[in-house]
Amino acid sequence: MIIKDGTPGEIQISKRQLLKSIGMVGGSTAVFAAMQGWDLAGATEPTKAPPKITTDGHGKKIIILGAGLSGMTIAYELSKKGYECQIIEADDKIGGRCQSARKGSVIQEVNSDKQTCNFESGQYFNYGPWRIPAQHHPTLHYCHKLGVALEPLINKSPMAYYLADNIEGPLKGQRLRQTDVDLDRQGHIGELLAKCADQGKLDDMVSVEDREMLLEYLKAQGLINRRELNYRPNRARGWKDYPGAGEDFGVYSDIYKLTDLFKMKVGAHLENEDHPVVMFQPIGGMDRIAHALYDTLLKGTVHLNREVTNISQTTDGVSIKYKDTVSGEEMTAMGDYCISTIQFPVVSKIENNFNPELQKALKAPAGSPAFKQGLQFNRRFWEQDDMIYGGASMTDTPGHAITAYPSSELHSNGPGVVLGSYIWGGEAARLSNLSNKDRVEFALNVGEKLHPGNFHHHYNGNAVTMAWHRMKYHLGGWVTWTRRKRQRQLPTILKGENRVLFSGNGIATVQNGWMVGAFEGAWLTIKELDKRAAQG
Amino acid sequence: MIIKDGTPGEIQISKRQLLKSIGMVGGSTAVFAAMQGWDLAGATEPTKAPPKITTDGHGKKIIILGAGLSGMTIAYELSKKGYECQIIEADDKIGGRCQSARKGSVIQEVNSDKQTCNFESGQYFNYGPWRIPAQHHPTLHYCHKLGVALEPLINKSPMAYYLADNIEGPLKGQRLRQTDVDLDRQGHIGELLAKCADQGKLDDMVSVEDREMLLEYLKAQGLINRRELNYRPNRARGWKDYPGAGEDFGVYSDIYKLTDLFKMKVGAHLENEDHPVVMFQPIGGMDRIAHALYDTLLKGTVHLNREVTNISQTTDGVSIKYKDTVSGEEMTAMGDYCISTIQFPVVSKIENNFNPELQKALKAPAGSPAFKQGLQFNRRFWEQDDMIYGGASMTDTPGHAITAYPSSELHSNGPGVVLGSYIWGGEAARLSNLSNKDRVEFALNVGEKLHPGNFHHHYNGNAVTMAWHRMKYHLGGWVTWTRRKRQRQLPTILKGENRVLFSGNGIATVQNGWMVGAFEGAWLTIKELDKRAAQG
Repeated sequence: MIIKDGTPGEIQISKRQLLKSIGMVGGSTAVFAAMQGWDLAGATEPTKAPPKITTDGHGKKIIILGAGLSGMTIAYELSKKGYECQIIEADDKIGGRCQSARKGSVIQEVNSDKQTCNFESGQYFNYGPWRIPAQHHPTLHYCHKLGVALEPLINKSPMAYYLADNIEGPLKGQRLRQTDVDLDRQGHIGELLAKCADQGKLDDMVSVEDREMLLEYLKAQGLINRRELNYRPNRARGWKDYPGAGEDFGVYSDIYKLTDLFKMKVGAHLENEDHPVVMFQPIGGMDRIAHALYDTLLKGTVHLNREVTNISQTTDGVSIKYKDTVSGEEMTAMGDYCISTIQFPVVSKIENNFNPELQKALKAPAGSPAFKQGLQFNRRFWEQDDMIYGGASMTDTPGHAITAYPSSELHSNGPGVVLGSYIWGGEAARLSNLSNKDRVEFALNVGEKLHPGNFHHHYNGNAVTMAWHRMKYHLGGWVTWTRRKRQRQLPTILKGENRVLFSGNGIATVQNGWMVGAFEGAWLTIKELDKRAAQG
Repeated sequence: MIIKDGTPGEIQISKRQLLKSIGMVGGSTAVFAAMQGWDLAGATEPTKAPPKITTDGHGKKIIILGAGLSGMTIAYELSKKGYECQIIEADDKIGGRCQSARKGSVIQEVNSDKQTCNFESGQYFNYGPWRIPAQHHPTLHYCHKLGVALEPLINKSPMAYYLADNIEGPLKGQRLRQTDVDLDRQGHIGELLAKCADQGKLDDMVSVEDREMLLEYLKAQGLINRRELNYRPNRARGWKDYPGAGEDFGVYSDIYKLTDLFKMKVGAHLENEDHPVVMFQPIGGMDRIAHALYDTLLKGTVHLNREVTNISQTTDGVSIKYKDTVSGEEMTAMGDYCISTIQFPVVSKIENNFNPELQKALKAPAGSPAFKQGLQFNRRFWEQDDMIYGGASMTDTPGHAITAYPSSELHSNGPGVVLGSYIWGGEAARLSNLSNKDRVEFALNVGEKLHPGNFHHHYNGNAVTMAWHRMKYHLGGWVTWTRRKRQRQLPTILKGENRVLFSGNGIATVQNGWMVGAFEGAWLTIKELDKRAAQG
């Protein structure tokens, strides 16, 4: 049996099929031993490595619209096989939404005041994507490949706060440590279920043996006492007075009562694999990824400040008209193929000669409002006073979801940039109607509830706010499809118009709001282009 | 009202009392506003800062036994007030158990072969303490104060494994992702409790209102479906096939059955506040803390290779006899006070003239066996193949508790040092009876179950193993007290013998197995010495 990746004329078996067949005989050890043969176990799984391109691209010109992660990835991969790639970008910088604001960065929303970032040197704010989970193989693939150094992003700090104003009872408006609430929820649940098990109330649902195992597990968690099965203050829950030396054994903190606690909805939804406690971020700013991709491209590949005005399929290629936004000059680029990575709500408005079905399909997905703002503080009070290192506090304040603390320069005595609020959907649209000043004031007021006396006091007047749905060349942080529209219209978009293809994170499925969606989209489009080029 | 910290002759009120009185009127905002007055909110709480020393130490000589964290901290703090400190250390290096092995480091247990570390340059292994939780204020205090740079230590990686051999059923011997097991445990518990709630089985325990809130919470977690209340595959649980772009929506992973899952005891115990998911470690090795402390001391303060042979209380001071372990020379040091930070099982065997009650008390705590070993691998397969970044896999293999992955140099293409096994108590005593070679072989065999085909294959032959209970000057990783013995004997030890005091992490209460215990112990002893010096 010859195993090759897609070389025509030889017997082919997919790696997944092969591994399955070995695994069925020898168990997982056999699978892993077999994978050793490829040297990079797992690295050639479909979701972990870019598709193999079978065609020779020499003499073929690809016009790519958009110099974001998708567009530059497509150019990077296709260039390796000889394709001549040209990227047309409307903005004055590369990266698409993969951006970091630093001293001097300029942000300009439609009909808004221009913002110029005035952070201290070394401080930055990722106002686009900001987190990379370990499971996002394609993103990590490029970070590895292109030497982008990563550091942990702490997505959840146990000492960060939950705060609910919109409840009744003694916990209303109180900032509560996330670890306390999380453990109390588990503790009360454990107590109730243990008592049910003990009283035979589960006997119509589980076997006697399972009931006993379950009960033993609930006791082993360390939250309920073994005899009365009551949830009580304990070491996992932590201390009101920390212990010390000598005779100072400390005092356990009090637990919240079930009747008060479960009124609180903040932090109820578990998002584990998608939102693990630790993720990653490039050291120095998320835009390092975009710049690392850019640095792989031949000089002259990317053309900035060029706004596309017409996309036309010709008899055997494409014709792209664009306007230089600096000189006003109008120009045309001709190519064998065009790949647009422009977000659908933007590209659907560009003049074109596509078939009506495609024109309709491009209008189907909606730009998703997404709002973020970064505020610089003189002192890292969340660390020094509150023992919060990274992670995010959450509230039920309308227009606010999270206030996230920086994961870089932990323990430093310098300043820090806090994600003052991050919100999406309708609330983001509403909040972003405020002026820049009022947006910041809103974040400061929520932050003040979480950090009384500190949030206003240590804010040093420098902030950056970003409403992606108000950015002319994006009109959204990502796109949202209804299930029905996706089923009906996405195949049309994927088919494109003969020599015109559509890519970007908008064609990713589940993870289209993440950077990984941009890479997934790029990889699918590369495969499709390769197929079409092979067919000539 | 004048507020001063312990200045004699003025009206004194403790900060805690004051804050309590403000808090009772104005709530937490008032407390925090008040704390702003001190500029460092919380930083002067008893557990967060060293005690204020009221006496003038000029002309007083303190002989400190042991150049570990306790001994050097005591010297550092007392020196500031003029005390002349001299540290006598039996070992040939400073740091006590706060050590990191690097290329060239030598380890010598009693009756064992000498080990010389042969790691690649830049690689290290913390064979003593290895983790700092955010709540360990005294440890962080010195890191801040002395400029020890910290980085996150990822204590739990969701993708690390649990593996149970000592169970029956289909999960026996299978490596299971921790995130999967954790969520399945929560999911099954949620389903059972939701069904109990739904069927009215909780009605004798909670009010109808609470029952409904609880049910709503269990649904909001996102693990059970809202109608049938069944736990089923879901996005938090994650993917069997990851989603991609186009029409690739991925496939959720299958959940483990309750009847199989709860047989597994590995990972059952929750240790949250003490063992949060993210902790800290000094960049470059834990011994940076010891060296930072050492660097604060006057040249000539620490004398290495000096084994204490006699501690005697004299009429108005102390007389310490010791032997130079290099030259064999015997010498005597005289001082006004002696503070021993030598671990109790060691100091209790040194000749002395203490009262019999104290002699008995020093013998009360037992040295706790603690075994660790670090193995260097050529390739970081746990990251590249298994998506594990930091954290630790756990098994129920006798003699093995955890295999922990490095948190430094994440995503690097270089080598990495894995904590091949860390075990304490009786199992540690048993395992450490093996030769160095057999210890490593044991760790490799357990590791091979967790990482088939990789653990043996990529091990590059360089390891360091450490049984602290077999180290002549330690005889344990820490000391263990029975509750009864502690109640009876610890006060005697704390009292010491007039001019002789006992310190170290052995006098810390709850956290005596952590570095913070060493600082807590030092702070308590400093306070006591200050008191005695004030009394003359």
